[in-house]
Amino acid sequence: MSKVASQLADCWKPFPASEKIYIAGSRHDLRVPFRQVKLSNTRGKDGEVVSNSTVTLYDTTGPYTDHAVAINLESGLPPCRLQWVLERGDVEELSTPSSRYRQLREADTSLNTIRFPVARKPLRAKHGRNITQMHYARRGIITPEMEFVAIRENLGRHGGSHITPDFVRQEVASGRGVICANINHPEAEPMIIGRSFLVKINANIGNSAIASSIEEEVEKMAWSVRWGADTVMDLSTGANIHETREWILRNSPVPIGTVPIYQALEKVEGRVEELTWKIFRDTLIEQCEQGVDYFTIHAGLRLAHIPLTASRMTGIVSRGGSILTKWCLAHHEENFLFSHFDEICELLTAYDVAISLGDGLRPGSIADANDTAQFAELETLGELTLRAWERDCQVFIEGPGHVPMHLIQKNMDKQLQTCHGAPFYTLGPLTTDVAPGYDHITSAIGAAMIGWMGTAMLCYVTPKEHLGLPNKKDVKDGVIAYKIAAHAADLAKGHPGARAWDDAMSKARFEFRWSDQINLAIDPETAISFHTEANTGLIGSLPSADEGIKSAHFCSMCGPRFCAMKINEEVRENASLETIAPLSAIKEGLKERADEFNKRGAVIYCEPE
Amino acid sequence: MSKVASQLADCWKPFPASEKIYIAGSRHDLRVPFRQVKLSNTRGKDGEVVSNSTVTLYDTTGPYTDHAVAINLESGLPPCRLQWVLERGDVEELSTPSSRYRQLREADTSLNTIRFPVARKPLRAKHGRNITQMHYARRGIITPEMEFVAIRENLGRHGGSHITPDFVRQEVASGRGVICANINHPEAEPMIIGRSFLVKINANIGNSAIASSIEEEVEKMAWSVRWGADTVMDLSTGANIHETREWILRNSPVPIGTVPIYQALEKVEGRVEELTWKIFRDTLIEQCEQGVDYFTIHAGLRLAHIPLTASRMTGIVSRGGSILTKWCLAHHEENFLFSHFDEICELLTAYDVAISLGDGLRPGSIADANDTAQFAELETLGELTLRAWERDCQVFIEGPGHVPMHLIQKNMDKQLQTCHGAPFYTLGPLTTDVAPGYDHITSAIGAAMIGWMGTAMLCYVTPKEHLGLPNKKDVKDGVIAYKIAAHAADLAKGHPGARAWDDAMSKARFEFRWSDQINLAIDPETAISFHTEANTGLIGSLPSADEGIKSAHFCSMCGPRFCAMKINEEVRENASLETIAPLSAIKEGLKERADEFNKRGAVIYCEPE
Repeated sequence: MSKVASQLADCWKPFPASEKIYIAGSRHDLRVPFRQVKLSNTRGKDGEVVSNSTVTLYDTTGPYTDHAVAINLESGLPPCRLQWVLERGDVEELSTPSSRYRQLREADTSLNTIRFPVARKPLRAKHGRNITQMHYARRGIITPEMEFVAIRENLGRHGGSHITPDFVRQEVASGRGVICANINHPEAEPMIIGRSFLVKINANIGNSAIASSIEEEVEKMAWSVRWGADTVMDLSTGANIHETREWILRNSPVPIGTVPIYQALEKVEGRVEELTWKIFRDTLIEQCEQGVDYFTIHAGLRLAHIPLTASRMTGIVSRGGSILTKWCLAHHEENFLFSHFDEICELLTAYDVAISLGDGLRPGSIADANDTAQFAELETLGELTLRAWERDCQVFIEGPGHVPMHLIQKNMDKQLQTCHGAPFYTLGPLTTDVAPGYDHITSAIGAAMIGWMGTAMLCYVTPKEHLGLPNKKDVKDGVIAYKIAAHAADLAKGHPGARAWDDAMSKARFEFRWSDQINLAIDPETAISFHTEANTGLIGSLPSADEGIKSAHFCSMCGPRFCAMKINEEVRENASLETIAPLSAIKEGLKERADEFNKRGAVIYCEPE
Repeated sequence: MSKVASQLADCWKPFPASEKIYIAGSRHDLRVPFRQVKLSNTRGKDGEVVSNSTVTLYDTTGPYTDHAVAINLESGLPPCRLQWVLERGDVEELSTPSSRYRQLREADTSLNTIRFPVARKPLRAKHGRNITQMHYARRGIITPEMEFVAIRENLGRHGGSHITPDFVRQEVASGRGVICANINHPEAEPMIIGRSFLVKINANIGNSAIASSIEEEVEKMAWSVRWGADTVMDLSTGANIHETREWILRNSPVPIGTVPIYQALEKVEGRVEELTWKIFRDTLIEQCEQGVDYFTIHAGLRLAHIPLTASRMTGIVSRGGSILTKWCLAHHEENFLFSHFDEICELLTAYDVAISLGDGLRPGSIADANDTAQFAELETLGELTLRAWERDCQVFIEGPGHVPMHLIQKNMDKQLQTCHGAPFYTLGPLTTDVAPGYDHITSAIGAAMIGWMGTAMLCYVTPKEHLGLPNKKDVKDGVIAYKIAAHAADLAKGHPGARAWDDAMSKARFEFRWSDQINLAIDPETAISFHTEANTGLIGSLPSADEGIKSAHFCSMCGPRFCAMKINEEVRENASLETIAPLSAIKEGLKERADEFNKRGAVIYCEPE
């Protein structure tokens, strides 16, 4: 893993002018991380110095940006949540992992070279105990996880917080909020998915039979969380899925999701008809005991729905959906995930793994959006939600896909109507099919809209969607496009605290505080490189060095003569516009001010037209 | 200009599998260009070959992609519309240009090295004649320009066309549609801006005092139209604005817009208080006689509005708006563009230059969106619209800027309410302020939404917005993001013909016709390079060569085992799902089909989860 260790330097590079801070909860080991960006001072009208408050940003990067923590990929991240789990006294350590497959993998010495070096015994609920966050919430217990989430959602604001730990508990109890926190993934920092909270994003990574390695996948995970992924799905379908996942889990500060049917299919060498409940069940156990936080389960795709797809433009495009379709047709039987759904819930509650009810029939094209097949499956997902909730099993609902803008609202309405308030988790949606190579954009449009309408988590789409597996650059492009969509949705929803970031940026822009604009940018590295590229060599006073940027009161967009920002600034300084607010006062007062303005050498921040 | 000539090779590179076609109108010189993409055949279930119809795309590239036309930047494009203008008999050729400034520039021999080599005498309406498209339309005349536009908007479909030349005439007569077509820019192919038509996009180019050259600006213009810009605004503020614009106009197949106040200010060496109506008027005449098709005129920013901006987060961010603010304050007088608005209209109707009523008070941040200042100016723009229409002067309305998603609809509603149906032309809007380096994305979200709601033209924003002037790559990134937004809006509006493109793409995707997917992509060059990058060296059967791509029935996203597309295909082929449409038939029929499916070697296109 030496390659990873060196490549990961990228992932733990400090953000400029940023400090990792922790806000303490009610116990010493409850420390909620944030990134705090320091701003420079504003020079007032008369040269006086006015300081600007720091801006506190939600931080998904985990220990990677905490320089007090020594990162060693071979030992994994500190298990920050382990004590909380153990303290509750309702779990036990298993001397042997329950999954037969895992036992075989562990016995295979040929895998030693790729195996994660540290073995930890899996935890499971004691017999008859239910240990899900939903179960605690329904019994009125506020867990440390809930308190952590409450502090985190308040973006570090003290006092006047609108999100209390008990509010989080209520949301989890009702099923409107999901805390993905497998007891076997204590490295993950608690986060919540629900429409009363900040909109979250997921990044997909994973190897396929023909591409990518463990090193690359661990790197993509760390790279995703650096740029803001709230969860990461490992969609590996190739070799060594078990070992790859172990490396990812032990080093991931965010919840990890998977689609277990992919690995189950690997186990029967790709022969769909040979898939059995037994193999699938062992796969669930294997992954539960490794620490996967949520599973996509395509239990809503029923045999009766399949013919509804026959006249579609693009049939069934969900990989999981197509596997189960093939299985149903080959056996002429109901989808075994549907038949065994109660058992699945039962099993998952022993580890607190959440279910992401997969939309195997999501539309794969504009032509197929909002069709009968899609909505028929959604009805079933609503029924399954109630069944999961009967067992205090946490659940959220996957959604499309490809949907033109005018059909997006209906998706959200239908989901709210049908799924009893369980969180919605959508892939985009892509608002047109014609732009392979730019699907992070076609889908960020749909994602922002559906996020505003109430979708709780947005699954990213990278530029390579429909063309190939994403590389590291694509992962970042996808994550950033989705952070933008999620933040735009938070703003439109009026999430308190979301606006503070925009306002700090705009104030810095208006005051020509260039370095603050860079430091506050969603991607400071790109912002600085674009700024430098556009300005280096063009204006002596705009070098890339921090001080030069800070002091330049114009930029290459307009040049010194035309800078509207500058004109504004001088108008405010000279004409004291603030004092002539009432329109009636203009006629009298303005002439005098105009003279004064001219006397002092008349100049107003701007954008090119 | 030799540098340009060689660089422009990029701009006239043929698009793959594409043919430039022309659909003839009612006269021999009325030929409407389209790009027609040829598709490969579909292999039917039993090996039979089914052909796929060509896809006809709107084509903004002009003669650059017509290999029957020899492009020579030094002589300019063929004046395809000149004969139509002359035939009407209402214009005259001026022996001397009317602009004093132009006369001086032409007399200055030191400019010979940068001057466009071919001089053409300007045209102007004969005394007392009004030669605007709106004037003709209101008198019931269908011009060749209107017929051209009607054919163009129908995307080459024959028969059943919904857009007739007379419909175009009605829209232009009512002011809901604007055909930007200065009689002095006969190189431009007619296009229409209006909410009954395809959503258009504008690309901004232009040098500043400190960056860029004529060569680069001509190249950016040609590069913009290659990727789909419907109009281009030359926002130059630096040296040699007059000569730069001449090169751009003579080589531009799309309408060119400007903000004349920028050049007027150049003429008084940046001293805003020295701007006069006389200098501005001469600048208008200079640009009218060169061939600029539309002018941004910030006539709606009134003195009384200025105090409304005092408490803003980012004051006045429009460059034109800030210049006029400074002028108003310095003189304590009403904005001279407002006072002289009728004269401006009068003057413009002699050349048919359209007015883009500038929003000098558009919000420059989320904090300032939809504020009193913005809407006060919009009211004035509505009044000015009626004044322009009294003179049959074509007009459209500029809009913001920075607006969070939940405030976008109100902008559109207000514009429709206030501006009597004149087309809306918005900059984005950006839906968050926090992503410098990615503002093509923050704004494509807002642009797609407002386009769907009825905005007629979207002014692009590049990744460099707020950071520097865009380079060639940024221009392409901006244009593509906006083509996506505009097309997504066309789909959502249900524009007939827009869906055909998506459907052809999706069908190709479902049938593994890789080369068709590439050829149909909004940017085939990026699509092929991503596809090759993701697949080269990974799978022998997925080389970048055309034949290899065409035949690969899987890709590196899932590998051969997991390809959902493939599973679908085989399900359709083997199980003939089309025939078991009624749900009731499933129980009886499916067992038998399942057996047959298994017998034939069971396999279904997919997207990663």
